Amino acid sequence: MKKEENFSEWYNELVETAGLTDKRYPIKGMNVWPAYGWKIMQYIDSFIRQELDATNHDEVCFPLLIPKTEFQKEKDHIKGFDAEVYWVTHAGLNELDIPLLLRPTSETAMYPMFSIWVRSHGDLPLKIYQLVNTFRYETKQTRAFIRVREIHFFESHTCHVDEADAQRQVEEDFEILEKLMQKLCLPYKLLKRTEWDKFPGAYYTVGIDTAMMRGRSLQLGSIHHYRENFSRPFDIKYEDVDGSTKYVHQTTYGMSERLLGSVVGVHGDDKGLVLPPALAPFQVVIVPILAKGNVEAVTAQARALRDELKAAGVRVTLDESDERPGAKFFKWELKGVPLRLELGARDIEKSMVAYARRDDGKKGSFDRSKVVDEVRSMLEVIAKDMRAKAQKFLDDSIMDVDNMDFKEVPEKWLRFGWCGEQECGRKIEERTELKILGSPYVKEDFHGKCLCCGKETDTVVYAARAM
Amino acid sequence: MKKEENFSEWYNELVETAGLTDKRYPIKGMNVWPAYGWKIMQYIDSFIRQELDATNHDEVCFPLLIPKTEFQKEKDHIKGFDAEVYWVTHAGLNELDIPLLLRPTSETAMYPMFSIWVRSHGDLPLKIYQLVNTFRYETKQTRAFIRVREIHFFESHTCHVDEADAQRQVEEDFEILEKLMQKLCLPYKLLKRTEWDKFPGAYYTVGIDTAMMRGRSLQLGSIHHYRENFSRPFDIKYEDVDGSTKYVHQTTYGMSERLLGSVVGVHGDDKGLVLPPALAPFQVVIVPILAKGNVEAVTAQARALRDELKAAGVRVTLDESDERPGAKFFKWELKGVPLRLELGARDIEKSMVAYARRDDGKKGSFDRSKVVDEVRSMLEVIAKDMRAKAQKFLDDSIMDVDNMDFKEVPEKWLRFGWCGEQECGRKIEERTELKILGSPYVKEDFHGKCLCCGKETDTVVYAARAM
Repeated sequence: MKKEENFSEWYNELVETAGLTDKRYPIKGMNVWPAYGWKIMQYIDSFIRQELDATNHDEVCFPLLIPKTEFQKEKDHIKGFDAEVYWVTHAGLNELDIPLLLRPTSETAMYPMFSIWVRSHGDLPLKIYQLVNTFRYETKQTRAFIRVREIHFFESHTCHVDEADAQRQVEEDFEILEKLMQKLCLPYKLLKRTEWDKFPGAYYTVGIDTAMMRGRSLQLGSIHHYRENFSRPFDIKYEDVDGSTKYVHQTTYGMSERLLGSVVGVHGDDKGLVLPPALAPFQVVIVPILAKGNVEAVTAQARALRDELKAAGVRVTLDESDERPGAKFFKWELKGVPLRLELGARDIEKSMVAYARRDDGKKGSFDRSKVVDEVRSMLEVIAKDMRAKAQKFLDDSIMDVDNMDFKEVPEKWLRFGWCGEQECGRKIEERTELKILGSPYVKEDFHGKCLCCGKETDTVVYAARAM
Repeated sequence: MKKEENFSEWYNELVETAGLTDKRYPIKGMNVWPAYGWKIMQYIDSFIRQELDATNHDEVCFPLLIPKTEFQKEKDHIKGFDAEVYWVTHAGLNELDIPLLLRPTSETAMYPMFSIWVRSHGDLPLKIYQLVNTFRYETKQTRAFIRVREIHFFESHTCHVDEADAQRQVEEDFEILEKLMQKLCLPYKLLKRTEWDKFPGAYYTVGIDTAMMRGRSLQLGSIHHYRENFSRPFDIKYEDVDGSTKYVHQTTYGMSERLLGSVVGVHGDDKGLVLPPALAPFQVVIVPILAKGNVEAVTAQARALRDELKAAGVRVTLDESDERPGAKFFKWELKGVPLRLELGARDIEKSMVAYARRDDGKKGSFDRSKVVDEVRSMLEVIAKDMRAKAQKFLDDSIMDVDNMDFKEVPEKWLRFGWCGEQECGRKIEERTELKILGSPYVKEDFHGKCLCCGKETDTVVYAARAM
């Protein structure tokens, strides 16, 4: 498995050998979550819950099926999804009067209820979220976590008195995102999508993008401001303090199992997964180094070490299997365990514990008496170093260009000026065969010329080939 | 709302007014989980996870959709579900070559994978579970949590070397169940279903039944021993220690959101929900009793009390809204909060805190300095008393009969002898219009005559009208 040589093969093989997914289910693009992968995804979910609960969002759960009649209420929305929804047409032995579709996203499931729930300004803001399975009939090549047909999905939906309050929600979403991404050790860009690429029905869309190998971009999620685009067709309005009736302004925020896919793709290496400590089912693995005559003594010490770390809240496993140490190293490196401790007779004699970091392979040893503190701070160092390394990778993936006179399009994210005209944007996309990801939500200092027409502009945009 | 007078109306109204479900979603039998109901369901889920993890089951997540071809592999199974599955026939603009169905239960989703996963005796026992949404096209009248078309569902599936090991799993399932039901304060009977009522494809089925009003029974879940009934059609076999190839023996264990429905139906009263302390989002509500001149002082004391209880791990809320105390009492009684604390100027003077129990309405007061311990032990007492009351209700719902000479069938579970012949069983069911729930899994001491043919028998069975 060589990440540099063939990222695609490396990724597709690793997600299975490391136990994150099983692609042998008899429907393409619908994969089984085995225990290890599901556990990691549940850590990610728990971080999302933690941040959403802390910002007064209520967790709810809406039905999976949506009547065709509701789905058709917002015109752009149905156009955007028409080619990728699954239709339930029969139940039991009957044909249904109104076909039902499997939610690709829940706007049209939720908003008929919002229209009942929201009555007065006192009901606002309404802030809810759910963690559910969604469905999209992908016709492109599927890829575990990144392009699948059943998607493990988080979505929050909010209603506000006006555009400004909805805008404040968008800003809060960015704060939530930043906290989450710290735990995942993932750098990202917030890029405001072009008009022709925004979410069907949105006023504007901010994409959350990270860089993968060879200048590929991967969208991890998105945040949308809907203004009144959905509240009008779904009739979600409230009585304001002055007695007038107004439509709510809405936002949504969605992220998927791609978060896990990007953890694999960004941090992984030729030995396997490299898991950020926050989402590792085991943060530490202890491998006892046994020799004839000391098996019982070393095992007893290794168990004591495990119990001590466990009592301190470290997620730790002791590998007592019959395999050789080398085979154990190999196995746990594949699984991405951030820190390995080794304990043999000599270590015990010297009151030391040997360690090896998964992220950079560095080795050393801890004083046995300080091991709990040392492990804790090492896990923090690992997270910090993983963040820095990933940030450098993202930065290095970006290349400034001021003309399109390249023979071959560089395997980079391109950064350049754009006059903002759709015609120029489309031409640039055609010429480069890249997608314009958009302009940075947080303005970047820039003055230059439109890559296409040469007009002076302060607007900079990023373009890349999407995964 | 009068539970005794019209249980059905009482139940249907309560589940909505208390915020457990919203039935206004535009598909009948597919309801929205609002925050309060979902929170309680998540407590139930967390208890299930806790017990399953402790008994070495791995949590996984399988796709929702099942190809028709897999679904048809076990003949009895498809016959049992044919009339109640939802069919996905189209995706995007295409008709699918092989129709897909929404899982009504996951045997046929999981077992093709088990056939890949299980290779040798070293892979056994295989013990997995998932918490997912399942679908059944109910044609009967729907009822929140009890008969719905999208069902929040727990299912564990296990594979074993032989029938005896599978049998041990069934016994372990009973232990898991008992621990869960202690927390829910629900009594139940384990009844081995008749041959004509067992799960499609099962070797035997044990139903988990509880009593609702007027002699109704409600099946909360079931545990099945499949023997080799599924492993043969799905080709799940292993190489044994002696090199021979054998089919695995399988079990499953399933429970649904009916657990919540029965908590509502068994414990609730005319004032609203009565939640067992283990699953109450708020175990304690503090209502400050304010009067002119003492608002600030009492509020400060009430907040201190809340913080003290919170720090001690009690789930507590302080109602600082503008409503009168009476309105607050009403609201939190409806929500089923187990214990209410009241704090006014007089209580503070006497260093006391007044309390009112939700389960039996009893009032009294705690010494302020001992309030944390008092609350903790009171919550335990409430749980204990709720269990005892519910157990008495179940016991009182049962009536021994030795003939069918009743003018009207009593509104009870009937308990009687049965020779075991299907012909007699069917006749009894026709005459009484009850369903035979089965014979107690843990044998009850009995000697009598078959209710139908009069033959002497040691087998006693229960029959009831199902909810």
